[in-house]
Amino acid sequence: MAIPASEAPWVPIARRKQLERDSCIPSHWRIPSSYLPKDPPLFEDGPQNVLGVPRRVLSAEETDITENYTVSTLLEAISNQKISAERVIGAFCHRAAVAHQLTNCLTEPLFKQAAERAKFLDSYLKEHGATFGPLHGLPVSVKDTFDVQGVDSSTGLAAYCYKPAIKNAPLVDLLLSLGAVIVAKTNVPQTLSSLDSINNVFGRTMNPINRLCTAGGSSGGEGVMIAMKSSLIGVGTDLGGSVRIPAMTNGVYGFKPSNSRLPYGGQAVLVPDGMTRSSVQPVAGLLAQRADDISYVMNELVPRASLWGEDCVFGQWSDIQGRLQGAGPNGEIVIGVLRCDGNCTLLPPIQKILSEVAAILGQHPDIKVVEVSTPPAWTEAQSLMNRLIGIDGAVLMGELLKSAQEPLVPWMQSRFKISEVGQLTELAQLQARRAELEYEMLQIWSEVDNYGRRARRLDAVICPVAPHPVPEIDRYHALGYTSSFVMFDYPAGTIPIRDVVEQDLELGQPLAGRSLSIWDDGSRELWDEKSVNRKVYLGTPLSVQVVVPRLEDEKLVRIMELIDKVVKAHFANHKFVS
Amino acid sequence: MAIPASEAPWVPIARRKQLERDSCIPSHWRIPSSYLPKDPPLFEDGPQNVLGVPRRVLSAEETDITENYTVSTLLEAISNQKISAERVIGAFCHRAAVAHQLTNCLTEPLFKQAAERAKFLDSYLKEHGATFGPLHGLPVSVKDTFDVQGVDSSTGLAAYCYKPAIKNAPLVDLLLSLGAVIVAKTNVPQTLSSLDSINNVFGRTMNPINRLCTAGGSSGGEGVMIAMKSSLIGVGTDLGGSVRIPAMTNGVYGFKPSNSRLPYGGQAVLVPDGMTRSSVQPVAGLLAQRADDISYVMNELVPRASLWGEDCVFGQWSDIQGRLQGAGPNGEIVIGVLRCDGNCTLLPPIQKILSEVAAILGQHPDIKVVEVSTPPAWTEAQSLMNRLIGIDGAVLMGELLKSAQEPLVPWMQSRFKISEVGQLTELAQLQARRAELEYEMLQIWSEVDNYGRRARRLDAVICPVAPHPVPEIDRYHALGYTSSFVMFDYPAGTIPIRDVVEQDLELGQPLAGRSLSIWDDGSRELWDEKSVNRKVYLGTPLSVQVVVPRLEDEKLVRIMELIDKVVKAHFANHKFVS
Repeated sequence: MAIPASEAPWVPIARRKQLERDSCIPSHWRIPSSYLPKDPPLFEDGPQNVLGVPRRVLSAEETDITENYTVSTLLEAISNQKISAERVIGAFCHRAAVAHQLTNCLTEPLFKQAAERAKFLDSYLKEHGATFGPLHGLPVSVKDTFDVQGVDSSTGLAAYCYKPAIKNAPLVDLLLSLGAVIVAKTNVPQTLSSLDSINNVFGRTMNPINRLCTAGGSSGGEGVMIAMKSSLIGVGTDLGGSVRIPAMTNGVYGFKPSNSRLPYGGQAVLVPDGMTRSSVQPVAGLLAQRADDISYVMNELVPRASLWGEDCVFGQWSDIQGRLQGAGPNGEIVIGVLRCDGNCTLLPPIQKILSEVAAILGQHPDIKVVEVSTPPAWTEAQSLMNRLIGIDGAVLMGELLKSAQEPLVPWMQSRFKISEVGQLTELAQLQARRAELEYEMLQIWSEVDNYGRRARRLDAVICPVAPHPVPEIDRYHALGYTSSFVMFDYPAGTIPIRDVVEQDLELGQPLAGRSLSIWDDGSRELWDEKSVNRKVYLGTPLSVQVVVPRLEDEKLVRIMELIDKVVKAHFANHKFVS
Repeated sequence: MAIPASEAPWVPIARRKQLERDSCIPSHWRIPSSYLPKDPPLFEDGPQNVLGVPRRVLSAEETDITENYTVSTLLEAISNQKISAERVIGAFCHRAAVAHQLTNCLTEPLFKQAAERAKFLDSYLKEHGATFGPLHGLPVSVKDTFDVQGVDSSTGLAAYCYKPAIKNAPLVDLLLSLGAVIVAKTNVPQTLSSLDSINNVFGRTMNPINRLCTAGGSSGGEGVMIAMKSSLIGVGTDLGGSVRIPAMTNGVYGFKPSNSRLPYGGQAVLVPDGMTRSSVQPVAGLLAQRADDISYVMNELVPRASLWGEDCVFGQWSDIQGRLQGAGPNGEIVIGVLRCDGNCTLLPPIQKILSEVAAILGQHPDIKVVEVSTPPAWTEAQSLMNRLIGIDGAVLMGELLKSAQEPLVPWMQSRFKISEVGQLTELAQLQARRAELEYEMLQIWSEVDNYGRRARRLDAVICPVAPHPVPEIDRYHALGYTSSFVMFDYPAGTIPIRDVVEQDLELGQPLAGRSLSIWDDGSRELWDEKSVNRKVYLGTPLSVQVVVPRLEDEKLVRIMELIDKVVKAHFANHKFVS
């Protein structure tokens, strides 16, 4: 006897989970319904940007705490006892509650636990005359995948609801051991493999800048939390771009480290344990409102990561003393510009933002900009990466969905395929090809003299995060610009540059050239005025991606800070580059 | 129609390879037959130590060049034009030719190419007034597995003879780009998976200290080359212990780095390409006559490795500035002593040497020694590692041997098994368990306070290289003491401490206790006076292994240097510890 859809096992689970989630928000933190955006989002209603709403409902002190501090200044204020951890965490939790009501960004609010933790930290500081650790009182949010003791890591799968974690993920433990406070867990896409953070249990997370556009994923809830200034550091994970993409869609900074910089263990099991170690390893990464916030926190996490994560290596975050030394003839930072990846045409705003940034950086005396032609290995990386990711055949995920009779969310309907677990010989062939591509990619970083001796040529490259601007809901395409740097294990980060303005839209001008691939078909549609009203992109953020070789994570963040500073200084003086 | 064994395809190939190898040794480098040891080696003939033979046939200058320089002083002498590269390389090639005649350590002598290269280096130095690179003129030997353009990488398999490499391995290219000179390629065991360097094509490499005992493997030729002072740096590879074991059996220093410190690519394909990336990755490592020789060369290789090997990461070899800072309360280096691994009883000389070293180190003011109880993860590591290594089913190796109708060498006859390539799901399970064991192993390095905060407790551990002394030919057992640190990817090195003396033999005293495992059965037999005359061990080297966490390679070598210095200073004053 078929169970009616409304009675499928996932339905009551989702209802109960959502009710429990609502009950974590105290009634005095509920916002007036007049502040809530309209649903469904319609073009006529415009972007319904909600970034300014928290200020209307938070106290002046709460607004001050959540808007006017960096990680560094906030931690200093707490350790100097100018503000208590309790007030700090209270303010951020209140703001997170507001953000959630506006965007549906949370899965597990941890406001009560966070308040208790903050009280403990305050009493510790009073008692010992010293902070508990170097991140004493820092409000952090974490992607739903990370285990927090006593709380589900359901990732929006009904099958994993009401199976609370028995211990913390190592990265959570590490953060707590340094004094950080976890304020909430945040929403993700069904299966984690799409770029819209929607699932049956928790629903869809909305973009706070523009409700018509995607909030991104898979760390979509984190992107929103950071954009809403509801936590100072968001912890996500990245395999196809899941830290860098929500950073891009929400206009914040995203940092995907190399493997072995942050512990990855203790997360929801969506592919069989041990599988990704044989195929390709996702990494934990950070989202933040500023590049120097990322640097500050990494400086504390990196030297201690190998005490907590079996997958981490010891390393200092202070190897670069003083001035950053570059590969240029006079020590300039040499930045390569990588444009089209050969799979997806860059849509005009992306072409433009890359050229703008290259031009601005090229004017700086400490920076040298060079064009880099597309390495064929980069072009091939996308399909190889897809095959590596797909080697598990999505068998376990299929079973999880089936067990609660969950339907697929819209984006997944045409894309989710269950096959069989691949063969080891096939995997070995993919890995062998991967090594060949990695070897080819090496060549972009170095130059060779007549005797065959090599020297470093480039310090970093800049390239797009995606070939298109922040797309409308369920229309994200073309992961190659991000996924390839997980396959190569290159650290990579997103820097928001500026918002889309009217002249970026080239209204009435069709896109030149022809589609490069099936991925490009979908991406080019995002610029096709028969398929989209380009005005939807107005005010959405344009970003660039910065990439360096493996384990040069500190260098990446330092270069991100430099680029950010130079670009921001430019825009403070000029509205646009010529 | 069966081909008679003498006519099997491998036979003429081996004959031709050996003739060609002989022809690389000029007639004036042939040594008098009266200097050659007797074969087969018989107990009655004693160890037939040949370490002193080269001095009897080399010129005074050649003896001086090959015996009285470290890497540092030799490179300085060449760059100051006190000795030409040509004379240096000539002396080492002559000595290698002598060593080979005494031990059969070479596969591909490269004396002619090395002489040409040395001439080029001399002319470069004259023309430019500067060295070609920081290793200008350094004599290096490499394990047969590494591709050198125009030369076979047969690894003693007939199927791979007469298939010369079309380009150099990245590590060879890196060494050459710095001015090093490859003097020869060296012998390995059939299949690389035994610990005696014998194969059908090149025959057996003999231990120069004691012809009755094994020369070790799989980088056995390298161990011998270094012991014979026929090259200053030997390049080997290590999966089960293949750098550290021949270092132990030949009384030299062996250093197995972490993955990603030295390029591994460009080697003979003995398992399908890409397989080890999914299962467990062997690493390239160095053998040398001194710990500071290893340090010197790593200091040049590490910062450049990521330009050459797609598997390498950027890193300086000078992060440790000035005094080594340890985890002890006053900055002492804290060294843990790991004794029995739970699988194989330590035979008395190994027990003793470990206790001696611990006692000597414990007296030093900058060192703190602590006993570490055996982590169960270490005990389990050996069998898990065996399963990871065996996941390829030895299918390709079976085909290679079959194609030339090669018989198995003695040690392999009871051990080589061809099965099927394993399943990916099985591999994933092994990797999941591996991660759990790695997590357990983390605990030995750190201490936890009442609030759950962690701090580093140990800087390094010392442990045996094997539970037994250097065994007789074809009797090596118990790889767990070495293979586990490849599975954990911990850098590990061998330090020779002293030779076995009469009182180590405990003649007439049977071994106490009971066998811990099937591996222990074979190991304990090596002390069973019904099975062995313990006097065979007299004069063979006793070593210890030093181990640190992943990627702390520089720290390992610095600690190896420290231990070496302290122990050597002790033995200069005392014959034994009480």
